[in-house]
Amino acid sequence: MTMSYEECIKACLECMEACNGCYDACLKEEDVKMMAECIRINRECADICALAAKAMQSDSPVAKQICRLCAEICEACGKICEQHSHAEHCKKCAESCFKCAEVCRKMAS
Amino acid sequence: MTMSYEECIKACLECMEACNGCYDACLKEEDVKMMAECIRINRECADICALAAKAMQSDSPVAKQICRLCAEICEACGKICEQHSHAEHCKKCAESCFKCAEVCRKMAS
Amino acid sequence: MTMSYEECIKACLECMEACNGCYDACLKEEDVKMMAECIRINRECADICALAAKAMQSDSPVAKQICRLCAEICEACGKICEQHSHAEHCKKCAESCFKCAEVCRKMAS
Amino acid sequence: MTMSYEECIKACLECMEACNGCYDACLKEEDVKMMAECIRINRECADICALAAKAMQSDSPVAKQICRLCAEICEACGKICEQHSHAEHCKKCAESCFKCAEVCRKMAS
Repeated sequence: MTMSYEECIKACLECMEACNGCYDACLKEEDVKMMAECIRINRECADICALAAKAMQSDSPVAKQICRLCAEICEACGKICEQHSHAEHCKKCAESCFKCAEVCRKMAS
Repeated sequence: MTMSYEECIKACLECMEACNGCYDACLKEEDVKMMAECIRINRECADICALAAKAMQSDSPVAKQICRLCAEICEACGKICEQHSHAEHCKKCAESCFKCAEVCRKMAS
Repeated sequence: MTMSYEECIKACLECMEACNGCYDACLKEEDVKMMAECIRINRECADICALAAKAMQSDSPVAKQICRLCAEICEACGKICEQHSHAEHCKKCAESCFKCAEVCRKMAS
Repeated sequence: MTMSYEECIKACLECMEACNGCYDACLKEEDVKMMAECIRINRECADICALAAKAMQSDSPVAKQICRLCAEICEACGKICEQHSHAEHCKKCAESCFKCAEVCRKMAS
């Protein structure tokens, strides 16, 4: 496993954890309706991060393409979470998403 | 692929579709908060159904064990959806869940 | 669910089944080494098809982007399976892959 | 997230990495046929570990049940990898599997 793979896997697993945590926290919010869009994209982002980690860990022939999509979805998730930055979990999640998007973009290029 | 595998894969894929559809419909409800528990279990149920289908399709050495868990989660999801049977999507989802639970239990035994 | 979603979900689920079946059959071949590349891409293709089906079934905000990647991976899988068209499972799998790639490309556009 | 969840998520993610790495290494072995059973169970084990991590990270209502199945599959994977302990990747993978099985059993009880 190259150095870059290791770094990108780490970013994906951290983003997966942040997104699943944010998903859970959104579902526990007083106003769940307001968080519906965030819940949706958190699920998608956590799942693509898991898929990207798996692809890199197994030296998949399509790892780069998966990282490219992962970067896109992380970017989208970060932008939605950012809008709810009054909630600590969304703020933290947005940071993990933007960081993972950046690392995945480099991996994909 | 044996006859039973085919039947069980079919039930899992139908339940996956019903659960993902119910997840989506719950997030579009007026009162999302009331559906929070349903949203959570729908995600879990859809994901374990996908995993069970994959395991049977690839003749996995642990297909039966996965079907046993799938039966449990389908049963749990059906019971939660049943409580919201005023919503058509929950009613339909509960039916798919109970049917899939039954087929998976037979497969696992 | 629009008509197109239904058609694309169907193609993804059929391709997932063909890929998981081909993965299994490749691992049972006399010469497994010759099928190593096919085994790898079958796993990836089955998993992205499952993800794409889930995304469309739940009306995901990133369903189109996932379908775009799914088309790419299906295309790649079809090309590798095509090279092993002496094996019935690879021939059948290549057909499902190319069909799914086409439908997903339309969905993504 | 409780202390135990954290520890169990860590064990699952380490086992997922070991299994995906072992899957890749097995497919690169000179004698792939001999590793076919190992390749199969590695895929299953990596996937259930990812599912268990997701369930705990999102405080899923079925996290314990998923951990119970994860323990079973990790145990099965460890036993198969153990038989190939001449290969460094299998030896390392067996260790991660047995450790994860133990932690998941505690979580499930």
